[in-house]
Amino acid sequence: MKAILVLNAGSSSLKFALFALQPGLADEAALSGQVEGIGAEPVLAARDGEGKRYREPLTVTSTSRTEQHREALTYLFRWLSAHNPALEIVAAGHRIVHGGENYSEPLLLTGPALRQLQKLVPLAPLHQPHNLRAVQAVAALMPEIPQVGCFDTAFHRTQEPVAQAFALPRAISAEGVKRYGFHGLSYDYVARQLPDVLGDRAQGGVVIAHLGNGASMCALRDGRSVASTMGFTAVEGLMMGTRTGSLDPGVLLYLMEQKGMDLQALTNLLYKESGLLGVSGISQDMRTLLASDKPEAAEAVDLFCYRIARELGSLAAAAGGVDALVFTGGIGEHAAEVRERVAARCGWLGLKLDAAANAAGALRIDAPDSQVAVAVVPTNEEAMIARYTVEVLGL
Amino acid sequence: MKAILVLNAGSSSLKFALFALQPGLADEAALSGQVEGIGAEPVLAARDGEGKRYREPLTVTSTSRTEQHREALTYLFRWLSAHNPALEIVAAGHRIVHGGENYSEPLLLTGPALRQLQKLVPLAPLHQPHNLRAVQAVAALMPEIPQVGCFDTAFHRTQEPVAQAFALPRAISAEGVKRYGFHGLSYDYVARQLPDVLGDRAQGGVVIAHLGNGASMCALRDGRSVASTMGFTAVEGLMMGTRTGSLDPGVLLYLMEQKGMDLQALTNLLYKESGLLGVSGISQDMRTLLASDKPEAAEAVDLFCYRIARELGSLAAAAGGVDALVFTGGIGEHAAEVRERVAARCGWLGLKLDAAANAAGALRIDAPDSQVAVAVVPTNEEAMIARYTVEVLGL
Repeated sequence: MKAILVLNAGSSSLKFALFALQPGLADEAALSGQVEGIGAEPVLAARDGEGKRYREPLTVTSTSRTEQHREALTYLFRWLSAHNPALEIVAAGHRIVHGGENYSEPLLLTGPALRQLQKLVPLAPLHQPHNLRAVQAVAALMPEIPQVGCFDTAFHRTQEPVAQAFALPRAISAEGVKRYGFHGLSYDYVARQLPDVLGDRAQGGVVIAHLGNGASMCALRDGRSVASTMGFTAVEGLMMGTRTGSLDPGVLLYLMEQKGMDLQALTNLLYKESGLLGVSGISQDMRTLLASDKPEAAEAVDLFCYRIARELGSLAAAAGGVDALVFTGGIGEHAAEVRERVAARCGWLGLKLDAAANAAGALRIDAPDSQVAVAVVPTNEEAMIARYTVEVLGL
Repeated sequence: MKAILVLNAGSSSLKFALFALQPGLADEAALSGQVEGIGAEPVLAARDGEGKRYREPLTVTSTSRTEQHREALTYLFRWLSAHNPALEIVAAGHRIVHGGENYSEPLLLTGPALRQLQKLVPLAPLHQPHNLRAVQAVAALMPEIPQVGCFDTAFHRTQEPVAQAFALPRAISAEGVKRYGFHGLSYDYVARQLPDVLGDRAQGGVVIAHLGNGASMCALRDGRSVASTMGFTAVEGLMMGTRTGSLDPGVLLYLMEQKGMDLQALTNLLYKESGLLGVSGISQDMRTLLASDKPEAAEAVDLFCYRIARELGSLAAAAGGVDALVFTGGIGEHAAEVRERVAARCGWLGLKLDAAANAAGALRIDAPDSQVAVAVVPTNEEAMIARYTVEVLGL
């Protein structure tokens, strides 16, 4: 049977999922997992469609990270065909973080396209190079299969110019310093479920809260993105596991001047030491914080929920009102208490939860007299990439 | 007749206003103006209560800016008594930008208080030293008069902790890196007018938009600040004349890494080269932009208005709903087109302007069927400082 391989390559990890074409695309991956620890001691962990789990160390011969990425991919291809010989990979779909200003759709990855995407590396130096290296590695190993790039930014290219703009000098904006938005693969996947979940309201003002270790929110109108909380980078907007989210830029100037912090120190602070971890001093994991009785844990959770409620107001303005709020992502799908605390700050919008439905994690969790529909919709970025790949290639 | 001298000392300017005690405090200043160009070629410009204008260069003997500040103040005292000999200065009230976490009220400026305020200089290095130097100069010149410090941050100390917090590590927050809010003297002055303008709604959810060359917004509930767009510094929040307002902090990291920008370059960019000036490439002056037919001017105005509408949604969330929107500041009071464009994006809140009342700059400009009251209330920070001074001293 034919199958689509989905790849998401990071600096030290390679996530994968294999979706069968039956001939329609399967909803669930036949095999999925990741190689972790690339550059150190790589380990492959996976599970198949029946829930069987695998875990094995890779033997690597090279010491360079780039070479280990290639070895991991070679190992993965062999491993996949050994563990599911009935599935023949006919195409690969890649998560590519940055599509810049021009790519508003997934794309067949040709030489010229790759050269364009290479130019975007300065906009996403921590992710884009790894994404593109995986494309090159697949091309070297399996030159016969077409590859499709799926961009985390593409879904947001429908936003009006003011939603994508910073109030910076024109010359800097013209160089590409603008608000791209991210988590687009997740938003598109969730948005496609919304007509079933929300009926006509799916075309109205909808705000999706993608709450995971990375977290952002997106406002939609007529099913299209009109605004998002993440902007130029994945640090803007909501408070996250270890990221600050939005921060007075004057704070950075203060930290440079008063504490002599440099680029590396500021980057660590904003990306690694802040958010739930920094405020609580305990953990970046929402489950740990919700289980804690320490006041510092409660403070972190309270700030997290408060900022979601504030951004909901701002995004409602962008969408011209809010008919529905949709939670997704690890926290959004599983933390009933977070949903409850957010909702408690949104009564002014006429939003009311059904406490039992929320506790049960039902698909719809709004009370009968709520003026805003509230839903919990699991996201699946890998399935979205597989679907894009099928769409672009006409499979 | 007794009088209160109000002073607002900046790096190169010294603003002043003299309010008579009749014995009640006069609403309008008997004399007001500023010494500009301190450190270069100082000039005193003033007007009296009848609108008569004065302008004269100062002869200074020193070259140091600090000494020139003292000379300017000496000159000002002599000039005031020459031009209004009937008014006897019995107290001075100062605008002091930063009152830190503890000062939530205006304060009699004693030695210990001044030492506390000196410790806040790192939080506002561009303003606080000048504010405090003026206090010391008055103490040296007129040791017999009491002085009162009025803080731009004090009005916001009623905000709940989450509204004042960044998602930074606890140690950094504990050092005072938090959201103080500014323009508090203006908000308090306007808030005190609101019962007359709004009736019962003055106690509801109110958002005041202080739109001048510096611009911010404040949400009130029961007449007290619950949230503000300016945070740690006066650069966060709305787009301003030359300031960016809120900006993805990742943009600063990008500019440091890709363009090698240092603290000075980033400070200039964020404070001096952005905002209306940077986006339009034409002017920081809203009047110039509104009169221009260039698309770049329209883009800047559109972004300015859009961001006000977004922040209104966010502040409505903080206040638990919005019953009234109040415009103040130079742009807020005089630019009917800005008010109209903001309102056009706020229809989702049930907000509707009365076009004729708006064009005329009436006190109330909401349409009869608007669900949100909309008002234009002139601000007067100097009068607020005079009033605080009278209150603190029991005059």
